[in-house]
Amino acid sequence: MSDTYTFGGRADRKAVETGNDFAPKFGADGLIPVVTQDAASGAVLMVAYMNERALRETLARGEAVYYSRSRDTLWHKGATSGHVQKVLGARTDCDQDVILLKVEQVGPGCCHAGYATCFYREIPLGDAVAATARDGVAQLTPCEERAYDPDDVY
Amino acid sequence: MSDTYTFGGRADRKAVETGNDFAPKFGADGLIPVVTQDAASGAVLMVAYMNERALRETLARGEAVYYSRSRDTLWHKGATSGHVQKVLGARTDCDQDVILLKVEQVGPGCCHAGYATCFYREIPLGDAVAATARDGVAQLTPCEERAYDPDDVY
Repeated sequence: MSDTYTFGGRADRKAVETGNDFAPKFGADGLIPVVTQDAASGAVLMVAYMNERALRETLARGEAVYYSRSRDTLWHKGATSGHVQKVLGARTDCDQDVILLKVEQVGPGCCHAGYATCFYREIPLGDAVAATARDGVAQLTPCEERAYDPDDVY
Repeated sequence: MSDTYTFGGRADRKAVETGNDFAPKFGADGLIPVVTQDAASGAVLMVAYMNERALRETLARGEAVYYSRSRDTLWHKGATSGHVQKVLGARTDCDQDVILLKVEQVGPGCCHAGYATCFYREIPLGDAVAATARDGVAQLTPCEERAYDPDDVY
């Protein structure tokens, strides 16, 4: 893993937006949000977080390494199951406070709940939110088939 | 705007992941991250945040309403410029702490810097990070054409 580079400074907001110095913003908790997208289908697979070490490892390794907030540790996704995410491209946004990964997801899916994508339920829109509520609670609609049985993997 | 529905409780983690009660997680700051994707091209346009009021307004109105952290106020995107985001679909993820919007972006683009997407710069991967560094600082590569002159809009 190469540490022979640094990140740019963030004092000059205009430079962060229009320049080419990579100056990612890690929040007060040391983390930056990451959107992970299937490079082939364009499906958004998941949103997770990286600290600086996870970001450096991801770039060096070419596989997604996140920071698990619940386990408070680096999380090389798929290290146990083999269902790694091969990083084919990465971008940052205008104010460099988000990372976008384009990946090839190895295996049946990215979601521990058994789906190809973590976004497997639709939120109703407009009048449908109230009209479809149950006991007053807004209801989601499943919109993806289960891709695998999580008990087989985790 | 309808307020005649409530959100579900989050005490039962399993129910949040496998049930259909819509139980979005607003963080300690009252906000939930939102990934906004172009419904036609699949391009990830931006990441922003909503508080509960912004989420309710978005669902009711069918246009993206965010919460501006810098201006500390609701932000009906495009209200001034006309470049609104028509919401064609919305999803949440397994633990319901992210919203995914699929939108039709009205106008030339979503980014105040003049691009169709906020993700207009590539991050180098592997050995290229160090190899392309300038004065030791990792460098981004522009990868999108300017879609408009922001001075004309903002």
